[in-house]
Amino acid sequence: MATPELIKNATRRIAEIKKKNDVVVVVSAMGHTTDGLLELAHKITNEPKARELDMLLTAGERISVALFSMGLEKLNLKAVSFTGSQVGIITDTRHTDARILEIRGERIKKALSDNKIPVVCGFQGVSPEKEITTLGRGGSDTTAVALGADLVAERCIIYTDVDGVYTEDPNRFKGVKKIDKISYAEMLELSSRGAQVLHPRASNIAARFNIPVEVRNSFNNKPGTLITHIGGIEKPRPTAITHSENLYLVTLVQVPRKPTYLSQIVTELTNAGIHLKFFFHGISDAKQFDLSFITPLNERRQARTILNKVAKKLKINLIKESLEICSVSVIGTGIGSENRILAEIFNTLSKVKTHIDAVTTSELSINIFLKKKYLNKAIDSLLDKFHLRK
Amino acid sequence: MATPELIKNATRRIAEIKKKNDVVVVVSAMGHTTDGLLELAHKITNEPKARELDMLLTAGERISVALFSMGLEKLNLKAVSFTGSQVGIITDTRHTDARILEIRGERIKKALSDNKIPVVCGFQGVSPEKEITTLGRGGSDTTAVALGADLVAERCIIYTDVDGVYTEDPNRFKGVKKIDKISYAEMLELSSRGAQVLHPRASNIAARFNIPVEVRNSFNNKPGTLITHIGGIEKPRPTAITHSENLYLVTLVQVPRKPTYLSQIVTELTNAGIHLKFFFHGISDAKQFDLSFITPLNERRQARTILNKVAKKLKINLIKESLEICSVSVIGTGIGSENRILAEIFNTLSKVKTHIDAVTTSELSINIFLKKKYLNKAIDSLLDKFHLRK
Repeated sequence: MATPELIKNATRRIAEIKKKNDVVVVVSAMGHTTDGLLELAHKITNEPKARELDMLLTAGERISVALFSMGLEKLNLKAVSFTGSQVGIITDTRHTDARILEIRGERIKKALSDNKIPVVCGFQGVSPEKEITTLGRGGSDTTAVALGADLVAERCIIYTDVDGVYTEDPNRFKGVKKIDKISYAEMLELSSRGAQVLHPRASNIAARFNIPVEVRNSFNNKPGTLITHIGGIEKPRPTAITHSENLYLVTLVQVPRKPTYLSQIVTELTNAGIHLKFFFHGISDAKQFDLSFITPLNERRQARTILNKVAKKLKINLIKESLEICSVSVIGTGIGSENRILAEIFNTLSKVKTHIDAVTTSELSINIFLKKKYLNKAIDSLLDKFHLRK
Repeated sequence: MATPELIKNATRRIAEIKKKNDVVVVVSAMGHTTDGLLELAHKITNEPKARELDMLLTAGERISVALFSMGLEKLNLKAVSFTGSQVGIITDTRHTDARILEIRGERIKKALSDNKIPVVCGFQGVSPEKEITTLGRGGSDTTAVALGADLVAERCIIYTDVDGVYTEDPNRFKGVKKIDKISYAEMLELSSRGAQVLHPRASNIAARFNIPVEVRNSFNNKPGTLITHIGGIEKPRPTAITHSENLYLVTLVQVPRKPTYLSQIVTELTNAGIHLKFFFHGISDAKQFDLSFITPLNERRQARTILNKVAKKLKINLIKESLEICSVSVIGTGIGSENRILAEIFNTLSKVKTHIDAVTTSELSINIFLKKKYLNKAIDSLLDKFHLRK
């Protein structure tokens, strides 16, 4: 919703739905509003308090809900805007990254019974101590699905700028297919391995409450992708591919082999909030071992600071070698235990001369870590191999 | 169902259910029947054909369904036994490890409409070419849930010898709690990481078709664990712990660094059917690298054979070091992206001086690989830490 025109376009979609069904609208901030507000804050101070950031950022959705409600009224519909707090989205107290604890949705239900369209601020809530919070990444999707769960909605529709969930990112890979239906479990795996289209937090809630979610394009009227129970008895095959580009592989070489060194290094990293996605120490000889781990790229600086601190504390010289790295994940129910598919992936990647650094598997995914230069050809070859293009 | 007495006990349970609901029974072979038949086969030949094995093994469930039906008739209920083929469980053609393609369940529906109790052979099906197949591991659970899906059953009840799904194996860890309800996604992760109580194939089908599954004890009348949609908005916390003991970590040391060596080694392994759960090659210097992977322990011999063959082909001397290894998985919705929980795990394991060899994460699990000698104390400390005991 970057411009007033786009808001008007969206209100017309809602008016169409309202002809047949009750509807609750959840909106996010307009276009770059949030970034603009953040920039303003950082012009005032380098280290804004999280509480005040939340107070500031929640203004963005207030603007959107007010404008959206005006747009609906203009179409002769009764609308009423609400903040997250007003509709009882109760969160924990982690400012800027709060989790929803419960929803006390009486005001929405009252508005619906008065035949009004509730227009709710996404991304925000209130703690039991009445402090304003924001939900962090994926916050608007999360609000929408959580409200859908509370209202036992028939469907939660996420309007976005693509036609649905694709077998890979359609802005980047040619000829990929739109997926008509995908299971909750596959969507969760897809979004947690990198697909941006629906946040894993929203997928989680949808699955736990059995709320069908449709991802569709707000700029056209095509049916989107439905995330739901999809049936299909037992056919383990890849449904989609996703990737994550901004990872960082660090290896500490020749760490002296002392009983607590390894655990101290890893514990310090996780205590400092570094997200270890993968961790492995190579085989050790009597004196030393190598320790490798993968974290998000944006935590590289912080990780380095921690490692220097640990090295000082342990009085050792940590030799670090680091590498930007990507992951490619092939997603599909049951493929993690279908050895045939792993073999097909290796054969395919070997043919296009892709070097693989590491692999992990789960029931729903096979995850391959590789250098950035191999990313495109790896995905292209796998899309072809598994017939994931039109 | 090891003895006639136990079969009678089970028929009484079914009779209770039949008072209020229509019911379809899926039975497995009695006690050690399958092992006994396998032993017989191996006394005849070292390498029985898979097709003939299937023909042989499916006799086990035939015996069970006939006896079970007789038991029900004895209770004055109308019962009718069916083979997998008779109730239209159509599978692919992979003998001894077939996957269900579809179910043509007309005969069951007819029997139900005649007020009969269909008693169906679990674990078996028939290919489109009318060849008898068996479903491999988890086959009986899979039959039951798949039939539940086809019949849109209100509930699928798995009778077993424990009271339900626990926070860890109750036969091994003291004071663990029975879980009343668990989400499809968590159950799937739990079973795919080692819990024996319900096979991942059955979990997968239950989730995709939204069939609630109850795991309960056939020896008492306590409510079991219900696998279903469970709600709960956003509280990432560990639900259960599971482990897998029979893994094998192999490291190839100082493999010469040539462009295709790595891919050839891995491709040969997967093409031969080795299940790589994890794979990592350490940092390489100009000349050589280390390559580590984790597979099921029972594939150790086969892996070794393949590696020797590859070494010969590549004309190199592969130095192998191998180690029996275990995994401990902490399961819970959203915990893979909750860094706090990873930190708590490391802190806890560090306090009990557990050495960790590797870690992988997914949205629903944190998986720790460690040596067998650390397994019990690692799990005990985590059960305490995350309040997973009574």
